[in-house]
Amino acid sequence: MSDTVSVTTGPITGSSKVYRELSDGGRVPFRRVHLTTGDHLDLYDTSGPYTDDTAVIDLAAGLPERSGVVRDSGTQLMRARKGEITAEMAFIAEREGLPVELVRDEVARGRAVIPANHNHPESEPMIIGKAFAVKVNANIGNSAVTSSVAEEVDKMVWATRWGADTIMDLSTGADIHLTREWILRNSPVPVGTVPIYQALEKVDGDPTQLTWKVYRDTVIEQCEQGVDYMTVHAGVLLRYIPLTVNRVTGIVSRGGSIMAAWMLAHHTESFLYTHFAELCEILARYDVTFSLGDGLRPGSIADANDEAQFAELRTLGELTKIAKAHGVQVMIEGPGHVPMHKIVENVRLEEELCEEAPFYTLGPLTTDIAPAYDHITSAIGAAIIAQAGTAMLCYVTPKEHLGLPDRSDVKTGVITYKIAAHAADLAKAHPRAQERDDALSTARFEFRWNDQFALSLDPDSACGFHDETLPAVPAKTAHFCSMCGPKFCSMRISRDVRDAYEKGMTDKSQEFAKHGNRIYLPLHP
Amino acid sequence: MSDTVSVTTGPITGSSKVYRELSDGGRVPFRRVHLTTGDHLDLYDTSGPYTDDTAVIDLAAGLPERSGVVRDSGTQLMRARKGEITAEMAFIAEREGLPVELVRDEVARGRAVIPANHNHPESEPMIIGKAFAVKVNANIGNSAVTSSVAEEVDKMVWATRWGADTIMDLSTGADIHLTREWILRNSPVPVGTVPIYQALEKVDGDPTQLTWKVYRDTVIEQCEQGVDYMTVHAGVLLRYIPLTVNRVTGIVSRGGSIMAAWMLAHHTESFLYTHFAELCEILARYDVTFSLGDGLRPGSIADANDEAQFAELRTLGELTKIAKAHGVQVMIEGPGHVPMHKIVENVRLEEELCEEAPFYTLGPLTTDIAPAYDHITSAIGAAIIAQAGTAMLCYVTPKEHLGLPDRSDVKTGVITYKIAAHAADLAKAHPRAQERDDALSTARFEFRWNDQFALSLDPDSACGFHDETLPAVPAKTAHFCSMCGPKFCSMRISRDVRDAYEKGMTDKSQEFAKHGNRIYLPLHP
Repeated sequence: MSDTVSVTTGPITGSSKVYRELSDGGRVPFRRVHLTTGDHLDLYDTSGPYTDDTAVIDLAAGLPERSGVVRDSGTQLMRARKGEITAEMAFIAEREGLPVELVRDEVARGRAVIPANHNHPESEPMIIGKAFAVKVNANIGNSAVTSSVAEEVDKMVWATRWGADTIMDLSTGADIHLTREWILRNSPVPVGTVPIYQALEKVDGDPTQLTWKVYRDTVIEQCEQGVDYMTVHAGVLLRYIPLTVNRVTGIVSRGGSIMAAWMLAHHTESFLYTHFAELCEILARYDVTFSLGDGLRPGSIADANDEAQFAELRTLGELTKIAKAHGVQVMIEGPGHVPMHKIVENVRLEEELCEEAPFYTLGPLTTDIAPAYDHITSAIGAAIIAQAGTAMLCYVTPKEHLGLPDRSDVKTGVITYKIAAHAADLAKAHPRAQERDDALSTARFEFRWNDQFALSLDPDSACGFHDETLPAVPAKTAHFCSMCGPKFCSMRISRDVRDAYEKGMTDKSQEFAKHGNRIYLPLHP
Repeated sequence: MSDTVSVTTGPITGSSKVYRELSDGGRVPFRRVHLTTGDHLDLYDTSGPYTDDTAVIDLAAGLPERSGVVRDSGTQLMRARKGEITAEMAFIAEREGLPVELVRDEVARGRAVIPANHNHPESEPMIIGKAFAVKVNANIGNSAVTSSVAEEVDKMVWATRWGADTIMDLSTGADIHLTREWILRNSPVPVGTVPIYQALEKVDGDPTQLTWKVYRDTVIEQCEQGVDYMTVHAGVLLRYIPLTVNRVTGIVSRGGSIMAAWMLAHHTESFLYTHFAELCEILARYDVTFSLGDGLRPGSIADANDEAQFAELRTLGELTKIAKAHGVQVMIEGPGHVPMHKIVENVRLEEELCEEAPFYTLGPLTTDIAPAYDHITSAIGAAIIAQAGTAMLCYVTPKEHLGLPDRSDVKTGVITYKIAAHAADLAKAHPRAQERDDALSTARFEFRWNDQFALSLDPDSACGFHDETLPAVPAKTAHFCSMCGPKFCSMRISRDVRDAYEKGMTDKSQEFAKHGNRIYLPLHP
C-alpha cells in the first residue's frame, strides 16, 4: 500500500516551519511567513510535519508520536475539573496565544473540548470552543461509488496543508478500517468518524439489521484505533419521526435516516439513546469526544428551525448533561440549510439547552438554489453562525449534493471555510486575528507583491492569478497590476497624494515657524 | 468590428424565454424553467433577447428599442412625484411581482431609482431599492494593459446571461468611447460609468491637468450616448485628505485618488463638489441617475468605518438633497473592506444621512487575507449588508486585487453575487424568493436531477459536477449520487421512512377504528 500512497510535502510558498519549545519538551509548530522587509509573521499551522523541510515522512510507519500523552489518565474534562494543566493544554495555550488558565477553565466548564484520544498520539493538540480561534473540519472518505485508500490519505494531508483543524473520515465503501488506519497514523490533526456507517457495512447495508452489539463493538474498535471524536445521532427519537414526514426534504442526515429506518422497523426507541450511558463509559476510557449529531437537521430552507430540529436539540441537551456527568467531552452538531435571519436563533438555543457545549455546524447553507456553489452559499451562513459563537465549522465543498469531492474540491472547501472562520475571528476581535490582515494590506499598499501572496490563505492561486496577465519578474515590484493599469492605480496615486501631502506639511510647518507660529488650517477650502 | 465580436446566445439549459404582455404594449421577459412534472416556474430574467431562441441578434445594429420611452419628459423621480405611473414602472411591477403603486411611491420618496437614460431604449427597465429584489452589478471594461472591445461586449452579454442586473463599463484604456457604444447599443440592462476615467484619458492620464470643462464635456458625451448612471466622487473634499494619510491603505478608489491628487496639486476644492448643481442640471435632462461615489471607502479591515469614510458619507448626504431638489435620481455607493461586526452601521448611517437613497455597495470584503478568493470574502459581507437594506451589490471577482477579470471570472463573480442577493431576499422575506428554493429542494428530494439542475443558478456547472462521477443517463433519475453511494443516501432512506410511516399510519388507523376509536399514541416509546 505504501508504494501507492503519495502526498504533498514541503513548505507553503513564502513560509517555513518553526517550532516554539515548551518547558515540558513539547514543540508547538507555526508557519513563519518571511517578508521582504526582513520582518516575519508566525501563523497558526495545522499542516504537521508535511510542511517541514527537515522532516522525514514515512507513510507506512506513520507520524512520530508526540510526548506528553498520558494513557489511563481520565479525560481532559476530568483533569481540567481537578485544576490540572495537561500537556495538551500547555500546547494549545502557546498555539492560540492565550493564557493556559483560560484553556483549562473553558474545558472544565464544558465550553471547549480537546479531542485527543489517548491512542492517537500522532495528532497535535488543538481546542474547539468559542473563546478560541474558530476551527474548520474537512470531511473526507470514500463511498461505494468512487475513491481509494491512497486518495483519501492524500486528501487528508492536502486538507491539513490548507488549514483543516480536524478531519472526519466518512468512508462508507470497502476498506473502512484500513482507510481509517492509514489516516489516523498519518494525521497531524484530530480525526472524527460516524461509527454507524461502519456498523451498517457490517450488516450489509440493511439498517433494520443493526443491533446495539454491532454498534458497540464498532465504537470500541474505533476507540482502540485512535479516533478522536465520534458523531452519535442519539437525539433522533422514535417520536420525532412523524415531525419529519411533512418536511420538504425529510431527514437528510445519513445517520439520522439510518436510525429512523431502524426505529420504524422495530417500533422501538433508538439503541443509541437507550444505551447512551454505556457509550459514555466506553468513550471516557479513551477520552474520545462526543459530537452529538443533528440527525434531524434541516436539508432545505423550508425546513429550517422547525419542530423536528429543535425537538432533537432539546434531547441533545439532555444527553450533554449525561455525557458530562461521565466526564466525557461533548460538542453539538448543527445545521444544515438555514436562511440568514434564522441562523442566530440556532446558536442561542444550542447554548441555552446544551450548557454552551461547543457548537459544530455544517454551513449552514443560506439558500438551496446554487448546487455547484454550495461552498459559497454555506460560507455566508458559516461566517454568521461563527460570529454568533459556533466553535467549529464543517466545510462544504462545491460538490455538495452532486458527488464526492476530489482533491481540488477539498482545497476549495478548506480555503473557503478558513475565510468564514477568519472573518468571524475578526468580528469577535480574537486577539491576534487582525495582525495578518494588517500585514497583508500594508504589503499591498507598498506593492510588495510577493509578501502579499505569502501572507494569503493560498499563495499559489494569488500569485498564479496575478501572473496570468503580468508574469514578468519586475511586475512583482511594479506599482500597479493589470486590473487598472499604471495610470489608474489608486494605490499608486494615493501614495503620491500622501507624499505630496507630507511634503506640503513640511513646507507649511517651516512657513508656520517663519510667520511666528500663528494658527494655520492648511487644507480647508 | 462586428465580424470579430461574438457572444453567447440561446436559452439557459432547461429553460426558455417567455414574455408577459402589458396593456401598453410592453413585453416583460421571464426565464421559464420547465419541470419534468409538467409544471414550470418563471424566474426574473436579466439576459435580454440573447436567451430568446426566436430573436435575431445583430450586434452591429444593436438591440431593438423598446416602446414607451418618452424623451424630454423629466426624470422618473419627477414623474413619480406627480403621481404618474410610467411605462417603466408598469414593466417593473410585473417583473418584480409587486404593486405598481409601490414602485411609484418608492421612486417618489427617493428610496428607489430606475436608471433609464432616455437615450438607452435598448435596456429593459429595472429598479434598485430596498423594497425590491436585491440587484447585482457586474463591472467590465478594459484597462491599458489588457482586453479589447470584442471581449468586453462578450463579457457584458455573458454577465447578463448569469444574472447581472446592471453593467458598469470601467474601461480606462484605448477606445473608451467605442467600447461604450458597443456595450450600450447591445446591453439589455442599464449601464453605469465613472466619467472621470475618460476625462483623465483626455488629459493623457495626468490628474493635475483635469478641468471642470473637460469633465463636464465628458459627462455630456456620455449622457448623449445613453449611459444610465454615473459614479461621481463629489464627496471627496480637500479637507478630508489629511484623514487618509495615516490609513493602512490610503485612498483605494481610483476616482477618489484622482480627485485627491487634483485638489492637492491645485490646493482647491474639488470641481465635482463646487459644480455639483450644474452636474445635476445635465443629468436631469437625460434622466441619468447619480451613483455618488465613495472615494474614501476603506481598502482594508484596518481602515473600516473611520473618520475619512464617514466624513465623506455626510457630504454625500448633503449632495443627495441637492440632487433630489433638481429632480435627479440618486443612489449612494458604499464600502469596501469591512469586518462583519462593522457592516450594519454602514447601512444605518447611510439611511440616516442620505434619506434612505438606495445603497449600492462593493462587497464589502470581510477579511483582507484571501486574494484569489475575494468573491467569497466579499459575498459574506454582501449578503449581510443586503439583508440590512442595501439595494444593489457590486460584484467582486476572484481576480480582485490581482488582475483584470476574464470571462470565467465574470461568471463566477455574477453567480457568487446572485447567491448573496438571493440569500438576502430570503432573509428579507421577499414575496417570491423562496418559491425557487422550495421547487429545487422538492426536486432534490424526489431525485429529479434534471429539474434540480434547471432550477439552479448555474445548470451547466451543477450537471457537470454530477456527471464527473456518474455520467450515465440513468443516473439522472437514480435515487443516489456518488457523494454517499446507494446504501447511504439519506434522501432515499428518508423517503423509505416516510413511506413506511405513512403505511404504518394507515394500518394503525384501521386498527384504531377496529378497536372502537380509543386514543392511540402510535410512536411514543
